[in-house]
Amino acid sequence: MNKIEHIGIAVKNLEASNTLFEKLLGVSNYKIEEVLSEGVKTSFFKSGPNKIELLEATHEDSPIAKFIKKKGEGVHHIAFAVDDIVAEIERLKGEGFVVLNETPKKGADNKLVAFIHPKTANGVLVELCQERKE
Amino acid sequence: MNKIEHIGIAVKNLEASNTLFEKLLGVSNYKIEEVLSEGVKTSFFKSGPNKIELLEATHEDSPIAKFIKKKGEGVHHIAFAVDDIVAEIERLKGEGFVVLNETPKKGADNKLVAFIHPKTANGVLVELCQERKE
Repeated sequence: MNKIEHIGIAVKNLEASNTLFEKLLGVSNYKIEEVLSEGVKTSFFKSGPNKIELLEATHEDSPIAKFIKKKGEGVHHIAFAVDDIVAEIERLKGEGFVVLNETPKKGADNKLVAFIHPKTANGVLVELCQERKE
Repeated sequence: MNKIEHIGIAVKNLEASNTLFEKLLGVSNYKIEEVLSEGVKTSFFKSGPNKIELLEATHEDSPIAKFIKKKGEGVHHIAFAVDDIVAEIERLKGEGFVVLNETPKKGADNKLVAFIHPKTANGVLVELCQERKE
């Protein structure tokens, strides 16, 4: 776990939240990206070595739509940068964490990602992410 | 906003969560600190340029006790490092954010801190923090 790569925040309206986070962070977003497989449209902001990812659901079965319905807008996940996601998944499984996808999948922002079940991590949805080389 | 300074996570049992986060992050905490004014006992971990702060309530009127009662364990706040907290509070007020304490107060880990109301920040409790010079 090299650093906090980004914090994912579930929002209802990406356009309105983009304006809000521009004001909060004092910078504009640098990317809008849709991840079809996750049913989300994302917007990324830089904050020094870290990023903020806003997530809007693109359909009502999206995990983000379900999250907002249950908990409202707010922090959805914390992502940590790792060098070797496969090794890190193995290490964490060995420590008793439940990994939701044991095979890393393609995420937004050119990353390979895996998620740890919040029930095994104090209620926090933890994402591991490794930069994709290609 | 220079970077994510830390993420604050509300936990029920600091000792148990310390063990959990040691396993998760692969490092030990570097500090335990009680903040009497906030009714919390905190534990800090480093993750590269960022920190994770675990927060346990020390009495039932603590904001952390109330948070856990309402929402369960999980992410409580996101703190951003700023160089000039007074100027940043003024800037954010001008942008329409509601600042919970307009005069910065002493927080854990040798910081001056101020909080932004989550209702004005997409459900996220945002903390500004500036290193104290003394």
